[in-house]
Order: sequence, then structure tokens, then C-alpha cells
Amino acid sequence: MSAPKSKIIPSRSAKRAHFDPESIYPILDEALFCTISYSVDNQPFSIPTSFVRHENKIYIHGSVGSHFIREIEKGIPVCITVMLVDALVVAKSAFSHSVNYRSVVIFAQAEVIDDIDLKTASFEWLTNKIVPGSWGYLRPVKGNEVKKTTALAFALDEASAKMRSGMPIDEEEDQDLPIWSGLIPLKTSRLEPISDSSSENILLPEHLL
Amino acid sequence: MSAPKSKIIPSRSAKRAHFDPESIYPILDEALFCTISYSVDNQPFSIPTSFVRHENKIYIHGSVGSHFIREIEKGIPVCITVMLVDALVVAKSAFSHSVNYRSVVIFAQAEVIDDIDLKTASFEWLTNKIVPGSWGYLRPVKGNEVKKTTALAFALDEASAKMRSGMPIDEEEDQDLPIWSGLIPLKTSRLEPISDSSSENILLPEHLL
Repeated sequence: MSAPKSKIIPSRSAKRAHFDPESIYPILDEALFCTISYSVDNQPFSIPTSFVRHENKIYIHGSVGSHFIREIEKGIPVCITVMLVDALVVAKSAFSHSVNYRSVVIFAQAEVIDDIDLKTASFEWLTNKIVPGSWGYLRPVKGNEVKKTTALAFALDEASAKMRSGMPIDEEEDQDLPIWSGLIPLKTSRLEPISDSSSENILLPEHLL
Repeated sequence: MSAPKSKIIPSRSAKRAHFDPESIYPILDEALFCTISYSVDNQPFSIPTSFVRHENKIYIHGSVGSHFIREIEKGIPVCITVMLVDALVVAKSAFSHSVNYRSVVIFAQAEVIDDIDLKTASFEWLTNKIVPGSWGYLRPVKGNEVKKTTALAFALDEASAKMRSGMPIDEEEDQDLPIWSGLIPLKTSRLEPISDSSSENILLPEHLL
């Protein structure tokens, strides 16, 4: 994975930047959503959307008629960010508070996926990411559904990960203050599935147990 | 709150858009992070950051030396997105899968907060948002800490909320299929605080119990 152009790395926290797939892929594989930004006449727009990584690209899907999709499928530059927050970092001073996070920034241009097999595969990858093991259980996808959807890929050639972990770092003169400092871990969980009215008599499939 | 210019509303889901503070403020008050996008020569950049809403503005903080802060403090157009995901919406077909979410999009320009009292107040609001009730417990903020930090405000005059709730909506011909459909709720929780080595003998303050 090549390093991003220097102009596109916000410089302040460059020490936290990583460019290797071993840092980047696990973050992309854990996060369900990214935010895609693009710009028209220097007016930025950004949209949260679900995505899936496969090999050295990420894939998103959208309606053929969506304004957002129609703009970015032109191949204009986009910036894609992914952010996982692991803990609030509570210091003895407000100024030293921080966040333990893992984030990825990608600079890329959309590549429209026309190949039907690859397009269908990208639906499968995304569906199995959102609900692992579910693709083969669902009603099979239909040709017109594939047609009504645009699939876009973005190469990860200009991607970087940043992360912070560990305890707060207070100013030296604050370290003996009798003020509690430490971490408040954050965790996102999937709760028990809730059946809709059509499924009350249908057993939960194994992949949802 | 005035309606955004039509050109800046991605049109597809306009039926889900809300422009009233009663829709927008609770989302901004629950979300700890937003993603701020800006553009330089039509190259978009975006950065996740913490923020706090007060009255009809949101406030962010950053290091005086940060590249990102120095760009957006010029007052260039930014797009700020906030996304809370409430549930995965699992339909009988992959195509009808969706997400229950609450999101806000803000179009604005940064306003630099020079007034020391307002700047300090914005630190207090943010600190008390991240860890409710903590500001008065922490070591008081110092003048040079306020100086080393840039506080920026963004008006919510061009903000809109979008949300989806409720059960999956399958195609009519799919509704009787013996395939489970429903919701998988997602929940982000704060776990038990973890003391750092300097705090092992310090009682957890009441606001963290």
C-alpha cells in the first residue's frame, strides 16, 4: 500500500499514522459504516453509508437514482473516513482528556462495478458483513435488484489508519493530584433480535442465535 | 431554523428529512462524535471529532497548530455529519435490508471563538457532555491551555435530520416467505471505568459510579 501524498495527511498526529494492511483492514472489517465526502465547486458534502472491504478495495451500494451516487460515480476525488471509538480517556485535567480510537482515512475515486458477478458478489460480502452467515438463508437476489443498484469500489492505495490506545497522559505536575483518571471503555453490542409480525412463527435462523 | 438550500439536500431520501430543533438537537446531544468535511481545490478531507451543542450552535476544539483547524478556521464551507445507528433492519431479501438510524447533516462555516469566557464555557460544555458532571471535579483549566486550543462554533441554521425507524419493508411478494425478518438493535454502552496506576487508591467520583 503506497503512502498517501503528503498534502493529504493532516499533519498534527502523523505519529499515529499507519499505512500497512495489517493496521487498516481490521478497522475496516469491524466498522459497519463509513462517511464518504466529496466536493462540488468546493462545497463539501458527506454521507454515512455501509460498506464492505474485499481484498484491497472497499465497496458501497446505492440506488441508481441517488444524487450522492450520481455525483461520486463520476470518479471525482472522495475522502472516506471510518471511526471506531474504544474508550473515553479521562484525565485529571479537562485539557488532557482524550479518546481511544481506531480510524481510517481513504483518498480515492469511485470505480463503477458493471460486471454482474462482481456486483452480486459485493452484495453478498456486504450482507454477510452486516449479518454474518445470512446471504445463503435469504430470498435469492433478483436480476432487476442488481440493476436498480449501483455498486462502487474504492481502492485502498491511499489509505492510512490512526489509533490511540492506553491510559491518559496528564501533565507531569498533575500526576499526583487526588483526582481519578483512567478509561471508560465503550462497547457497541447487538441486542436480542426482535421479530416483525410476519416472523413471529418463524424460528430464528442459526446465524442469528 | 431555516431550510437548507435545495442544492445541498441529497434528494433521494428527502421524505425522511426534518428541519426542526426538536428533531435535530436530541441527535446532536446524544452523539459524541461528528465528521467534519471540507474541501481544498475540490479535494475533500474529513475528520472525526468530538463536539457539543449549545443553543443553536455546535462547538469543537482543536490544537492551534492542527492543519485541519487552520484550514477550517478560515471560514470555508464545511459539511458536518452525525450518525447514530439504532438497529440493523433484516429483511427477507438482501435488497430490502436497511438500517434504523438518526443522522444530522449541517452545512456551515466556522466562527472562531475569541472571547475567553465563551471559549472556556465551550470546554465546560464539551467536558460535561463526554463525562457528565465532571467539569467541577477536574483540575481547573489554565489560561495557557485555553490559549493553546482553538474553539470553533458552527451555526445550525442549515441543519437537517434524517431518520429511519420501524420494521423491514419487504416486497409484497416476499412477505409470506418463511424467512425470518425483524430488527437487530445495536446499543453502545459505557463499561466499568478502569483506573490508571495513579488512581488505584482514589475513590471513583460519584459522577462515574
